[in-house]
Amino acid sequence: MMRELIAVTARPGIISFAGGLPAPELLPVEAWAECTARVLADDGPRALQYGPPFPPLQAQIADLMRRRGADVAPEQVFITSGCQQGLHIAGRLLMDPDSAVVLDRYVFPGVRQAFTGFARDAREVPSDVAGGLDLDAVAAAATRRPAPRAIAVVPDFHNPLGVSLGEAARDRLIDLSRDTGVPLVEDDPYGWLQFEGEPARPLVARDPDRVIYLGSFSKTVAPALRAGWLVAPPHLFDKLRVIKESVDLETSALIQRTLSAFLAAGHLDAHLSRVRATYHTRRDRMVDLIARHFPAGTRWSAPRGGMFVWAELPEGIDTLALLPTAIEAGVAYIPGAAFASTGGHHAMRLNFSNASPEAMETGLATLGHVLHTGLDRPPG
Amino acid sequence: MMRELIAVTARPGIISFAGGLPAPELLPVEAWAECTARVLADDGPRALQYGPPFPPLQAQIADLMRRRGADVAPEQVFITSGCQQGLHIAGRLLMDPDSAVVLDRYVFPGVRQAFTGFARDAREVPSDVAGGLDLDAVAAAATRRPAPRAIAVVPDFHNPLGVSLGEAARDRLIDLSRDTGVPLVEDDPYGWLQFEGEPARPLVARDPDRVIYLGSFSKTVAPALRAGWLVAPPHLFDKLRVIKESVDLETSALIQRTLSAFLAAGHLDAHLSRVRATYHTRRDRMVDLIARHFPAGTRWSAPRGGMFVWAELPEGIDTLALLPTAIEAGVAYIPGAAFASTGGHHAMRLNFSNASPEAMETGLATLGHVLHTGLDRPPG
Repeated sequence: MMRELIAVTARPGIISFAGGLPAPELLPVEAWAECTARVLADDGPRALQYGPPFPPLQAQIADLMRRRGADVAPEQVFITSGCQQGLHIAGRLLMDPDSAVVLDRYVFPGVRQAFTGFARDAREVPSDVAGGLDLDAVAAAATRRPAPRAIAVVPDFHNPLGVSLGEAARDRLIDLSRDTGVPLVEDDPYGWLQFEGEPARPLVARDPDRVIYLGSFSKTVAPALRAGWLVAPPHLFDKLRVIKESVDLETSALIQRTLSAFLAAGHLDAHLSRVRATYHTRRDRMVDLIARHFPAGTRWSAPRGGMFVWAELPEGIDTLALLPTAIEAGVAYIPGAAFASTGGHHAMRLNFSNASPEAMETGLATLGHVLHTGLDRPPG
Repeated sequence: MMRELIAVTARPGIISFAGGLPAPELLPVEAWAECTARVLADDGPRALQYGPPFPPLQAQIADLMRRRGADVAPEQVFITSGCQQGLHIAGRLLMDPDSAVVLDRYVFPGVRQAFTGFARDAREVPSDVAGGLDLDAVAAAATRRPAPRAIAVVPDFHNPLGVSLGEAARDRLIDLSRDTGVPLVEDDPYGWLQFEGEPARPLVARDPDRVIYLGSFSKTVAPALRAGWLVAPPHLFDKLRVIKESVDLETSALIQRTLSAFLAAGHLDAHLSRVRATYHTRRDRMVDLIARHFPAGTRWSAPRGGMFVWAELPEGIDTLALLPTAIEAGVAYIPGAAFASTGGHHAMRLNFSNASPEAMETGLATLGHVLHTGLDRPPG
């Protein structure tokens, strides 16, 4: 459903807050061209041949993980073709058709697909923009029989909610995993995009034996690389390799080598500085415009990183029902219902990374107007 | 097992006939560098952003299919991250844990994995280097209850056997699919590498409603692109898109656009001419050296395309048991048993695309010597 929505909202003339696209004007086009040219000149045919995980890239990713506080050996870095593939591989590793998984009530559909493609029993835990994930409910779901095979969480800049888990919540999740034996799957595509506040250490930094961590270069370098990684306990690697071989054999040697050159040249830090500063400004402007234009009673997240604001509208506004009106008026968003198996009808996800300041100004004013018309309708 | 073997045989000093690697000196390094630079200069951020299937590439692949006699619309071209992903997606589309599949007895392990990951019941059909696939056995397996969900075949330059199906066999498979309602999965990574004889039309050209066709750019352009495609009846596309989204979201926009530029510039034809001529020479030399050095009673395929010769050694030679001796002597191959769930112990797969003439000369003489020692051993 989400991709279809995004396709509709990509029509010319629509101001779209629907996608999860990085700011296009920041994508490192020249640096990537330089690095590709250098790799093909230096490595020649090896860059176009079949190639296993590229050891220098594994070591560079281990360094990145250490900067987040996680002591990861290069051999524990498993290269994937993006975070979604990491989720899929983790799902295949952990689940079978009869097993259960613990998930947020609101979650990126790719996370749900990766696990519920295998699991009949998805135990959904309440989460909202004010309190984040309800950890008492996680504990209850994790201890119910049969034991679930995974607890899937997005600790930093949650998609769609924009919220992050605090230190105590992270420690409690680790304790819960230790007590129940249920592994944690930590989906972290956005953790590298923090622009405000003190970073919290990821779950994998707290107990690497209990966590499968998923990272991505889609939001930090470019989505078109289709490159990410997974960190897992060493005893799982034989199985992970068999699954990877069966799903797409391996991740592009050319992309792996070029990414390695990009990191070695120091482009990532320079790029992330620009991205974080831009997203910070856009987040500020978005929450300011929401405050100005949205109906009284609206609540929203003010994420300290990532790409998304979640807005909970007053009861009576149905964001799914209002979407055609909004598109007619020239503005688009993702209705909250797209992230939930039930509910979410009064909420919406708004992306701030991809919109220019002018588009944001016009688009959110228009959207505020549409929402006020929704409020005026008699309850349905 | 196969990838581990290939890793062992990649040790310096080993002459390896084990892999399935294209000739490295022919990989189009300069053309790819040119095309990447042009795409990044012309398309800018769009080449690094998220991107759906790239319509010009879909149209170019439809043109390629028409050259093989298949009338395919661009919208019927589904872009994959390589042929193995095509197999995986076809497996997920067609199979469930209780369903059956009809497979060659000897088959590339990736094909078996893609279907038996889902199917309990793999109905294996005899095939050998002399007669190819036993079609009476295919018919028997396809009509047994419960009806299988797929018949998976490699009509051109079969991996590992090197054999191809004739016109009559192809027509019979189509008739069988029509009579039984069982779809055909046509795995065709090698069909573009024919260097001798008249090409036969692929199955999908004979009846597009009954066939899921899998193509790849790994052997025709470069393995590191991780790009291929699938052709399927239009009514399957909604499901295919959902599966693709869940396994890796999409295939790299950068690779898709660069491939499109590579094809538009006419590089593919020039490249394939060189590849076919080189592989033809290497095939000739390999079968000549096998005839010269291998024990009397050995039978082998003389493939008219592709990358592999299959050699069936006299009874009493166990190619799996002999492999350590061969590696000790400095030469490697894949034992036939790696392609079969049972049997294959007297056979081996030899790759001719990756070996220089000198390596082939030395390696096959050495291997012949090792095989003679195997023959001298007392049975059992």
